[in-house]
Amino acid sequence: MRILYHLPLSAECRKVRLALMEKRIPFEPKLERVWDRREEFLELNPAGTVPVFQDENGLSIAESSAICEYLDEAYPDPSLFGRTLAERAEVRRLVAWFDLKFGAEVTKNLIYERHFKRQLGHGNPDAANIRAGYANLKPHLDYIGWLAETRAWLGGTHISLADFAAAAHLSVLDYANDVDWKYNPAATEWYQRIKSRPAFRPLLAERVSGLNPPAHYDDLDF
Amino acid sequence: MRILYHLPLSAECRKVRLALMEKRIPFEPKLERVWDRREEFLELNPAGTVPVFQDENGLSIAESSAICEYLDEAYPDPSLFGRTLAERAEVRRLVAWFDLKFGAEVTKNLIYERHFKRQLGHGNPDAANIRAGYANLKPHLDYIGWLAETRAWLGGTHISLADFAAAAHLSVLDYANDVDWKYNPAATEWYQRIKSRPAFRPLLAERVSGLNPPAHYDDLDF
Repeated sequence: MRILYHLPLSAECRKVRLALMEKRIPFEPKLERVWDRREEFLELNPAGTVPVFQDENGLSIAESSAICEYLDEAYPDPSLFGRTLAERAEVRRLVAWFDLKFGAEVTKNLIYERHFKRQLGHGNPDAANIRAGYANLKPHLDYIGWLAETRAWLGGTHISLADFAAAAHLSVLDYANDVDWKYNPAATEWYQRIKSRPAFRPLLAERVSGLNPPAHYDDLDF
Repeated sequence: MRILYHLPLSAECRKVRLALMEKRIPFEPKLERVWDRREEFLELNPAGTVPVFQDENGLSIAESSAICEYLDEAYPDPSLFGRTLAERAEVRRLVAWFDLKFGAEVTKNLIYERHFKRQLGHGNPDAANIRAGYANLKPHLDYIGWLAETRAWLGGTHISLADFAAAAHLSVLDYANDVDWKYNPAATEWYQRIKSRPAFRPLLAERVSGLNPPAHYDDLDF
């Protein structure tokens, strides 16, 4: 059986889960409390981070970008990167945009600060970082809204990993009730579309112990 | 003509330059002072970061990971990712290791702190971050040494983007005289090997205005 070691509030893990579901690749998600620094897990990934994917051929792959490239090479249909070189370059630019830029400017300030920092022994949440996270979210929602108005999907004419990367970050923030869905209607309309896909259902049904999502979290007509 | 917008002390830019040189793809490097936020450049990459690569077909590509994947798809010979799925997964894991983990723990603390922070208007260098950068470099050199002793090249039996990503970060640090080459002989021997490749020569010949490298920087028998 394929295994994905993950944490429910990790956006990179959600991106990989959405990619697996969209490609209809069956797998078993396994919760990995990375702060325990389990020795068998560190052998799979010396960085000690999730996600780590183990395929049924025994190959185990660390780092969400390596996993997604692997999935598209090993299970090419449907492609999540697009067909032409130009499409693939644009999808990869946007995946890096969401995982690195959105991740550092928004998700890290809001989710890591309040939900992972203490557990990882990195100290107390910093109120200035949390304020910065909320402030940074607005121009990012505007950019998503602009992309959604300009193109069929964020990366171009087809749904791609760019949509799943963006939706992964937003769905983690939405679980923590951090997104004002009235702020940018075009971004909200795009998120409603991607949230309605079958690939999204397992994420919406999952609950994190000790933290309940807002009522609209699993509502497709929020 | 192909153009690479770059900064000489950016490790991600050096990684792309090494990939282009190793593939013998002619290009013109153009210095981009990202802190000027030039409008024409922001149109190429709204993130405002280097590297950005413009191919002779007119396609322009932002984000170093997107550029390297593009180069391997558009100019596949020699491959910098390896041939089998397992090799490619390991190379991509290590590229992410160096660009993200080594980058955040070492390069950002030593190079960004002292050479980019003021210019970007982000305040003064923080002595605690610089100390952390030097401390973090040691376990990373140990990991590189361990990989170099266990395998022919860092990613496996062939030279790959894993070597160029690692060497890109180390060469930036070496330009600033931040690396103690006596610390891990296996890491030093691997760096001597990769530094001797023709792809490395243009980097070693380049000088940054206002900052001279140590005498050993362009010496192949340092």
